[in-house]
Amino acid sequence: MHGLNHIGFKLSGENQKYLHSYSTEINTFLPGQFHIATNTEVEVSVNKATKAFKTFKNITYEQRALFLDEIAHQIINKEDELIERAMKESALSRNRILSERLRTVNQLKLYAGLLREGSWVEASIETENDIRKPVRKPDLRKMLHPIGPVVVFTASNFPLAYSTAGGDTVSALAAGNPVIIKAHESHLGTNEIVADAIITAAKNTGMPDGVFSSLIGNGNALGQELVMHPAIKAVGFTGSLSGGRALFNLAQNRKHPIPVFAEMGSINPVVLFPDELKTNLKKTVKNYVLSISLDVGQFCTNPGLIIGMRGKELDDFIRSISNSFKKLTSQTMLSENIWINYYSNRQKMLGQKGVKILTEGEGNEELKAKPTLAIADGRTFINNPHLSEEVFGPFSLIVICENSEELNQVATCLNGQLTTTIIASENDLINYRPIIQEFKENTGRLIFNGVPTGVEVCKAMHHGGPYPATTDSRFTAVGEDAIKRWVRPIAYQDCPQELLPEPLKNKNSQNIYRFVNGKLTRESL
Amino acid sequence: MHGLNHIGFKLSGENQKYLHSYSTEINTFLPGQFHIATNTEVEVSVNKATKAFKTFKNITYEQRALFLDEIAHQIINKEDELIERAMKESALSRNRILSERLRTVNQLKLYAGLLREGSWVEASIETENDIRKPVRKPDLRKMLHPIGPVVVFTASNFPLAYSTAGGDTVSALAAGNPVIIKAHESHLGTNEIVADAIITAAKNTGMPDGVFSSLIGNGNALGQELVMHPAIKAVGFTGSLSGGRALFNLAQNRKHPIPVFAEMGSINPVVLFPDELKTNLKKTVKNYVLSISLDVGQFCTNPGLIIGMRGKELDDFIRSISNSFKKLTSQTMLSENIWINYYSNRQKMLGQKGVKILTEGEGNEELKAKPTLAIADGRTFINNPHLSEEVFGPFSLIVICENSEELNQVATCLNGQLTTTIIASENDLINYRPIIQEFKENTGRLIFNGVPTGVEVCKAMHHGGPYPATTDSRFTAVGEDAIKRWVRPIAYQDCPQELLPEPLKNKNSQNIYRFVNGKLTRESL
Repeated sequence: MHGLNHIGFKLSGENQKYLHSYSTEINTFLPGQFHIATNTEVEVSVNKATKAFKTFKNITYEQRALFLDEIAHQIINKEDELIERAMKESALSRNRILSERLRTVNQLKLYAGLLREGSWVEASIETENDIRKPVRKPDLRKMLHPIGPVVVFTASNFPLAYSTAGGDTVSALAAGNPVIIKAHESHLGTNEIVADAIITAAKNTGMPDGVFSSLIGNGNALGQELVMHPAIKAVGFTGSLSGGRALFNLAQNRKHPIPVFAEMGSINPVVLFPDELKTNLKKTVKNYVLSISLDVGQFCTNPGLIIGMRGKELDDFIRSISNSFKKLTSQTMLSENIWINYYSNRQKMLGQKGVKILTEGEGNEELKAKPTLAIADGRTFINNPHLSEEVFGPFSLIVICENSEELNQVATCLNGQLTTTIIASENDLINYRPIIQEFKENTGRLIFNGVPTGVEVCKAMHHGGPYPATTDSRFTAVGEDAIKRWVRPIAYQDCPQELLPEPLKNKNSQNIYRFVNGKLTRESL
Repeated sequence: MHGLNHIGFKLSGENQKYLHSYSTEINTFLPGQFHIATNTEVEVSVNKATKAFKTFKNITYEQRALFLDEIAHQIINKEDELIERAMKESALSRNRILSERLRTVNQLKLYAGLLREGSWVEASIETENDIRKPVRKPDLRKMLHPIGPVVVFTASNFPLAYSTAGGDTVSALAAGNPVIIKAHESHLGTNEIVADAIITAAKNTGMPDGVFSSLIGNGNALGQELVMHPAIKAVGFTGSLSGGRALFNLAQNRKHPIPVFAEMGSINPVVLFPDELKTNLKKTVKNYVLSISLDVGQFCTNPGLIIGMRGKELDDFIRSISNSFKKLTSQTMLSENIWINYYSNRQKMLGQKGVKILTEGEGNEELKAKPTLAIADGRTFINNPHLSEEVFGPFSLIVICENSEELNQVATCLNGQLTTTIIASENDLINYRPIIQEFKENTGRLIFNGVPTGVEVCKAMHHGGPYPATTDSRFTAVGEDAIKRWVRPIAYQDCPQELLPEPLKNKNSQNIYRFVNGKLTRESL
């Protein structure tokens, strides 16, 4: 571990103040001391990004695609060094880290493919009408353009796929924006290895110095400095509601506000309907024991709220899931902070009037989370907004509604969610259709008879949702459309052919889909 | 004039406090006393909108299109009553008001057409892969959905096309959102006539009560109340930077922030290059005298800044435009406020060090604006940010740069703009290409050899730009894509066919374009 900041192509450690990376898995500090970035280093990285933007935005999409491909290649090249460090820093299993690396690499290739295909720029052309009265219709063409340097705050719970070379970084780079990473304090070594890979890839593919930087910082100071910098044009963040909201507030109060795409708190309600419970009790219980406890419940899509209607079917479900839950053992969490917050939020929840503990897993060791189910009735949930707060970790609250009216009321009082899951048979779908529609209102993804954990990376995915799930429900953090966060349209009026960007020229050289005079077509003009 | 608020289908005037509409044209109050909405009336209108949303979002696109068509029909039905009132309230010419009505009607039909065609929902489908290892790929489908009640603050300078039934209202309704209007204080009668037309159209086409409301309010109180209401999901605004920013700040500091699409201040730089000036001096001068003074310069795209390089060509331009400008006469402005602000901002500008008055039109009467050209050198402009502030009205500042380097510097220090215009010959385009690219960075629309006034309503238009031109550079206020401001994606995972919205079902009944497994197609599955 060199422990240095990546200020573009330069490794830099001006400061003699350090951070260290702690492994909850082996309960000790890991090798490496990481230089906290100085104000000068921050300033240089932003200036380099600003300068790099001038060339990076204008290179061909193929060149950008080659850069992304090469990042994937360089990450694979890091082999076990990366896997081992990520495992130690996250306490996640080898299989999980391997699958995350695969996802990271696949995301890079996905965006490389998107660039090569090219239609993502949403090119739109309306040709002139010189004889229109009373005024001529001008030639108008527009497409999406990159916006400038983007700051990415990496996720604690995805040391690879939503961190240094994760979804935010890659979609921002693909769009043509330089990226500055605020390295996550809990996986500084993993960050260093991946940042090294990105810098090597940038050099190998002729990218400008400053296209990527990675900075090390303590607490909030570095983040605030980056978000407030006038040259920064957008922010990506994955983390807690309080953290995301603080950055959002900062950015909105700038002289020139900038968008903050913060993916924050979601309790991902699961709604159980009686007929399906009767038919598929075992499968449902098995799925949910696994989904709640998977990777110590440390997912933004963890099912933190299970809602049903009082009756024999729900009783059977509760009994059965309790029995299975008891057999779970406590597992090591990502970081000490997350572990402390888990128990403090769990206690806060269990301390609410009308909330009772239902069952817990085994074990009670330091840094390990005990999987926990709590229970409350519908009225209690409706009357106390604290019951809608996220307990990040292997925790779920079961809410028992008296009847379908109360279930509907629960639906209307829910906060914005990343996902909502409906567990329902065909009969249930017929019997409870309006309630299901109501649950759709506050969610980004409506899942039927599945689990919310497991987010497919594809065009049709929406990983977003109304506040507080995210700060902007119109955009997704996962899948091809995540690129739309980092672009804005520019229109060209009566622009000479040679000054138009390639996708807007008469000749459709990349054979992309374009709206031409109202029709979607791949033909040249 | 009944002077009542439209609380959904109910006309209501609980308050005995009134506003009156003043005509700057005839310098007197116009008939009608307009009841200021009470808190109860505001609350009822929001509640009605919330309730109406439940049905309005679920009606067919054809029904929504019929509603929009019928609004157009009812507006035309108002005939001269509407035209006369709008003329008196705005002091704009009959021709201008007639063309604005045409634009309003055409916008309604444009969105009706968009709904009937249907592809605007951006449907995306990825079918399941049951045999994928290690985990099955689920069936995922997503499309854009309406977000809920929208508040629209109408524009002072477009009493029809960007007011009660204007671009914001119509795009929000087309998307499936109920709309609540804050009527503009300077054209309350025009608002009433158009609101009556919308309500008649809503009743005639079976729309739910609450799909549209129009409220009358004084100062900021009504606006604040609406923006802070938890049931309001987005805001559209056209007006001043201070007004837009105040609403934006309010909305971002809500417990649950909501988007504010504010179209605010732009000075729309025009960059003159020497070879084109030499060749087409007369045409350029004629175009710009007209563009600056058109409708008393009261356009968001008014060219408030003209930039060139010192030399004979620019000297000739300045001499020629000055001569033409002197012959202009003062014209009546939209409202007393706008007139007061015009002179106060003009004086502020003329009081800046290094800014000199170049020439003025004739006349100096109350409520009339004297067309004004001022002049400064490049260094002065670069060093004083006040010179980048908008003077709303027939005012333009000519900036003389010493050379192309200084011109480039001016480009880099510009604020975000709605438009930037390049006046350049083929030779100029070759000689100054990097400078032209630099001017692109801060603008929403780059125009070649034209004028910024005159905004085409079409798919390829982008009427937006980086802050302070707007609060969100990713969205347009004009053209089909304006609908994207009022929607968010929802994804459906493994959703039974009968619960999917029509555009996501296997059968592509509306024959729309959809992304199906990565390919754009109109085929059914």
